[in-house]
Amino acid sequence: MKLLVTGATGFLGENFVRQLQSEYELVALVRDSSNIDSLKNLNCNIQKYKAESEIFEVFEHHDFDGVVHFASSVCVDHEYEDIKVLIDSNIYFGTLLLEASVTTKVKWFINTGTVWQSYLNEPYNPVNLYAATKEAFENIAKYYTETSNLIFTTLRLNDTFGPNDSRDKIFNLWISNAQTGEPLKMSPGEQIIDISYIDDIVNAFDALIKELSEENAVLLKNATFTVANKEKVSLRELASIFEQATNLKLNIEWGGRAYREREIMGTYNVEQAVPGWQQKYSLEEAIKKTVESKNVQKEN
Amino acid sequence: MKLLVTGATGFLGENFVRQLQSEYELVALVRDSSNIDSLKNLNCNIQKYKAESEIFEVFEHHDFDGVVHFASSVCVDHEYEDIKVLIDSNIYFGTLLLEASVTTKVKWFINTGTVWQSYLNEPYNPVNLYAATKEAFENIAKYYTETSNLIFTTLRLNDTFGPNDSRDKIFNLWISNAQTGEPLKMSPGEQIIDISYIDDIVNAFDALIKELSEENAVLLKNATFTVANKEKVSLRELASIFEQATNLKLNIEWGGRAYREREIMGTYNVEQAVPGWQQKYSLEEAIKKTVESKNVQKEN
Repeated sequence: MKLLVTGATGFLGENFVRQLQSEYELVALVRDSSNIDSLKNLNCNIQKYKAESEIFEVFEHHDFDGVVHFASSVCVDHEYEDIKVLIDSNIYFGTLLLEASVTTKVKWFINTGTVWQSYLNEPYNPVNLYAATKEAFENIAKYYTETSNLIFTTLRLNDTFGPNDSRDKIFNLWISNAQTGEPLKMSPGEQIIDISYIDDIVNAFDALIKELSEENAVLLKNATFTVANKEKVSLRELASIFEQATNLKLNIEWGGRAYREREIMGTYNVEQAVPGWQQKYSLEEAIKKTVESKNVQKEN
Repeated sequence: MKLLVTGATGFLGENFVRQLQSEYELVALVRDSSNIDSLKNLNCNIQKYKAESEIFEVFEHHDFDGVVHFASSVCVDHEYEDIKVLIDSNIYFGTLLLEASVTTKVKWFINTGTVWQSYLNEPYNPVNLYAATKEAFENIAKYYTETSNLIFTTLRLNDTFGPNDSRDKIFNLWISNAQTGEPLKMSPGEQIIDISYIDDIVNAFDALIKELSEENAVLLKNATFTVANKEKVSLRELASIFEQATNLKLNIEWGGRAYREREIMGTYNVEQAVPGWQQKYSLEEAIKKTVESKNVQKEN
């Protein structure tokens, strides 16, 4: 099976390629300007593009069975100047992929969504402009699914973590905190955190790909699934699990800063898991693996 | 009341400015490259912009009560190369307007939608990519209305016509046909046409502005209204009315070409008219005015 992967230089995409490189024939579509060092030793065909027309040519040249679309511009609190990149990355680029997919008769398309599209568990209430652009893209996709046989599905993610995550995320923050020992101001910490380990997430994508390869895959047209962790813990509880898993000591000043505006306090309760997928890693186990990999890197 | 108008160099926007120039203080936001000849003799302040930042400056400089957003890129059947302009015009530009509106505390925003967003009378099923971008923009707007006091409303239009319409539309086609007498191939013509006269449309916008100036305007937040003609006629019947109104003779070969893919055969039945608005012009009367104005122009 030959798959196009976008966002392969990002955390999700790179892990997807690493974990599934021997299972599928993978083609990574990356911008001409992207740093592709992280993909060098992986078994994947890298296709760089500059102009929009080159994206179309990649589709014409290959005969893709499916597209796995990770590429995204994430922005929690945007400024006026961020609007262009949010719309270009999260709507325009994806629309080009859909157009090329339909024209070259790609069978299916997996989109990556976010639970931030459903603030307060409403069917659609975006936490931020980033989430709104994700929803807007799904409505663009509706046009393509209404007018073609493309099977478009969305896998909505909660928060994610894992080894080699260079993003400015909670565990990296806490590792630094444990090392410096200086007090770290955080919100009161009562919000429930839903965070999944990267291997579990990639497994969910893989399970969805397998469903999409079945005879009755057409039933998945416009379906939305969610990857969620069965362990729902508060941010404070997460800190305890972190300390336990890593033997590190955190110095957090809970309530030292306010909750974020539109902070998600509970978890997304409309969770339809990908059929056939099961979470493999407990939070403690996964945090341990994540922090250990950091240490290994530091010793090199 | 000071209003920002976008798309003022287009058919809808220009007529809006002409008809309401003495009622409101109007500022037209137009691209630096736009031809503004049609606005020259109208009472409206023209603000040209080149960079996105200049749009924001226009909002900062003026103190707008409302925005009337006509600007749009219409494309019935798009090609791969049209995607950029569709998304830039129908999503990106509007998002900049919303961001600037919220930041500068504009009270309300009237968006122009299309009944093409509701193919087969479904709540959302876009006839084409153009309609999908219109829906996507409404998704984006939802973010702004959830996080601010901006009152965002959408006025959905069916087809439109009137004097000085340079667009490639049915009555212009028929005027040429009557003049040349050569057979014109059209679809079988049984589709029901919902087409409104420009003065009625501008009146609907005006009625909505008046509603938005009321104390309880907040009730209109995220409301959608539709401008529809009370006369629902088939395309064939429309041709008869045209002949009767104009004394012109059409030479149409009905069925000479097929219906368009995703042709709307019936009319949009979820019509919520703008409160206080009433249609003034019958089809026959309006067609007569439209064609007469053409003749006047020709004699000049």
